[in-house]
Amino acid sequence: MLGEVIASVRNRRPLVHCITNYVTANDCANLLLASGSSVIMADAPEEAAEITAMCDGLVINMGTPNRARLDAMIKAGMAANALGHPVVLDPVGVGCSAMRMDAARKMLACVRFAAVRGNASEIRTLAEGTAAYRGVDADTDAVSSERTAMQLAGMIGAVVVVTGETDFVTDGRKAFRCTNGHPMMRTVTGTGCQLSALLGACLASGGDIPLNAALAAVCTMGLCGELAHARLLPEDGNASLRNYIIDAMYHMTPDILEEGARYEVYA
Amino acid sequence: MLGEVIASVRNRRPLVHCITNYVTANDCANLLLASGSSVIMADAPEEAAEITAMCDGLVINMGTPNRARLDAMIKAGMAANALGHPVVLDPVGVGCSAMRMDAARKMLACVRFAAVRGNASEIRTLAEGTAAYRGVDADTDAVSSERTAMQLAGMIGAVVVVTGETDFVTDGRKAFRCTNGHPMMRTVTGTGCQLSALLGACLASGGDIPLNAALAAVCTMGLCGELAHARLLPEDGNASLRNYIIDAMYHMTPDILEEGARYEVYA
Amino acid sequence: MLGEVIASVRNRRPLVHCITNYVTANDCANLLLASGSSVIMADAPEEAAEITAMCDGLVINMGTPNRARLDAMIKAGMAANALGHPVVLDPVGVGCSAMRMDAARKMLACVRFAAVRGNASEIRTLAEGTAAYRGVDADTDAVSSERTAMQLAGMIGAVVVVTGETDFVTDGRKAFRCTNGHPMMRTVTGTGCQLSALLGACLASGGDIPLNAALAAVCTMGLCGELAHARLLPEDGNASLRNYIIDAMYHMTPDILEEGARYEVYA
Repeated sequence: MLGEVIASVRNRRPLVHCITNYVTANDCANLLLASGSSVIMADAPEEAAEITAMCDGLVINMGTPNRARLDAMIKAGMAANALGHPVVLDPVGVGCSAMRMDAARKMLACVRFAAVRGNASEIRTLAEGTAAYRGVDADTDAVSSERTAMQLAGMIGAVVVVTGETDFVTDGRKAFRCTNGHPMMRTVTGTGCQLSALLGACLASGGDIPLNAALAAVCTMGLCGELAHARLLPEDGNASLRNYIIDAMYHMTPDILEEGARYEVYA
Repeated sequence: MLGEVIASVRNRRPLVHCITNYVTANDCANLLLASGSSVIMADAPEEAAEITAMCDGLVINMGTPNRARLDAMIKAGMAANALGHPVVLDPVGVGCSAMRMDAARKMLACVRFAAVRGNASEIRTLAEGTAAYRGVDADTDAVSSERTAMQLAGMIGAVVVVTGETDFVTDGRKAFRCTNGHPMMRTVTGTGCQLSALLGACLASGGDIPLNAALAAVCTMGLCGELAHARLLPEDGNASLRNYIIDAMYHMTPDILEEGARYEVYA
Repeated sequence: MLGEVIASVRNRRPLVHCITNYVTANDCANLLLASGSSVIMADAPEEAAEITAMCDGLVINMGTPNRARLDAMIKAGMAANALGHPVVLDPVGVGCSAMRMDAARKMLACVRFAAVRGNASEIRTLAEGTAAYRGVDADTDAVSSERTAMQLAGMIGAVVVVTGETDFVTDGRKAFRCTNGHPMMRTVTGTGCQLSALLGACLASGGDIPLNAALAAVCTMGLCGELAHARLLPEDGNASLRNYIIDAMYHMTPDILEEGARYEVYA
């Protein structure tokens, strides 16, 4: 099942429009190319809708936001919705400033997302920003994170992915826990951004239900981290890991994914 | 002949001003440093003319455009023209939006380019945007691409480089086909941007006619891709290829280029 | 002594806010992660003060400036000052344009810096821009650079780091010369930016006097360059060196630093 998602990306070669931060843009582009996708990065509001219309999917990443880039996200998101393209939101640091919180709220109001990916804190902040949110336990343990994610998914009609030690993928009714990945991935900037980009590619390749496409992306990215870590030489550190993660994506096949994916049904 | 161009870059160590996209800026900088050049990246309209005046050449890359960056391109381009510095245009995605098309048209009207590099679609779009363009067959086969490139070169008085499976280099009268390179280079974001940056360095080192300088840059970049590909270990993918391409530029010598360059006279 | 600084970064894991250029942002982020720090990159004036308030230190890097980013630097700098967070200035290319010179002057007037790092030319330009500066010999030899650095340090009450063949670290009264590093580091874009980022992490970890923290950062970065160079295979070039420098930071320990640091007391 998951292997078909990766096969579909390699066969359909979706063109993914990314409006993303400048810190990890290069890695996101190379990860997408490694997956067999194509990519256009363009963040000017003047051209955002036109660019996204040429593409098969849109990834909105809120890192290094500025007024123009946030404006472009809304314009592109609405254009993508009108065309039926899947849109992914990565609400980077959404709780860190009023500017990001306001932008996220506006995006949830104007754009229908196919998927949202963040860490537990970002997903909670996003959920709290929606009018319908009724709250779960204030503690940030894994279980309450998962309940929050399911609630958010149900409210906005999107697949929600919470990444952390264990990753959680839900569409509000069904859910999976994925244990792929390696702790050292946290020492590489942008592995979360790359997963969000890959989510966009998997959803844009269609052919499968979004929850499965998202689960495939999550397992694939985690597995790339494991394979990359296994390659490390004694002197290699996080810069080498960064390269090996993308290299692992380049060599990923449906079979490698099917054999390496570690997930369980949660609900 | 081509070796002398690379020798000249290494000896004169030109300072190249790049106004370029943020996705591949780091790779362009490291590729230029690998070539023996120095680099300044600066894209604010307030300082664009001043910065370019300190340099030996200017590279304008239209990826991730925004209003301010496009304004800086025009200002820097005109300043570079006034000082007689070579200016290179990389019209990234020029056909993808009205904003890019308008910007390209304005640049061609205001700035004299020493060289333009793009893929077949970008070069055709650029040619169609000029008033004098009379059209060639609408098909996009290689031959019509080459005729379009020669026509554009003649109209704007620049060397035009069309990259693809085979690269094409022309000043409107003479032309070369270069078959260096490796298909896997397409899986690395920014190899085209890097070639445009290298074009700027080769032209800024003077001492040779622009057509030869451009041919040298094209063959060099392709050869770097071949050498990089030959180094790949079984687990290496496009991220490793990216590093090895720049490493190959670091070790490039006139002799390696003369031995490895594969081109033929077209006209 | 120097080892304790690195130990402190690894133990306290400071969160460092970087307002920095887009050319080397990814490398700065990965270098900070390699050191055990965390990092947020955010450059919008609307959120700059809020973001910096969450952090332990601020690094302002003037590469690829634009109006909004420069505005964010002032706002974040003043907020960091009010909270007692250390602020580092990297005046990239300050002598290259009136925009950068004006911005640097304004920053020195509005923000108290804990440390400033630049090359000899940048530090001299910065000193000349201060009202109190009385000039040293106009020549740019090493001795006059060092006298300028000491004068600037005294005037602004900051540690000043001048990097070059030999690095110089002073608080205006005491000073050190550090001879770690390798000439090939110059072929990697952003090693200076990375040092400035590391300076921010070392100062934000507190527990030591700023001059020692700065000396530790300078020796560490130079030593990473040496260790990286020692790893190079015959075909490796500057792209591999770039990766190995960050990898070396990942494996840096207090003992490796104590054994490898090469510095002498200057005054």
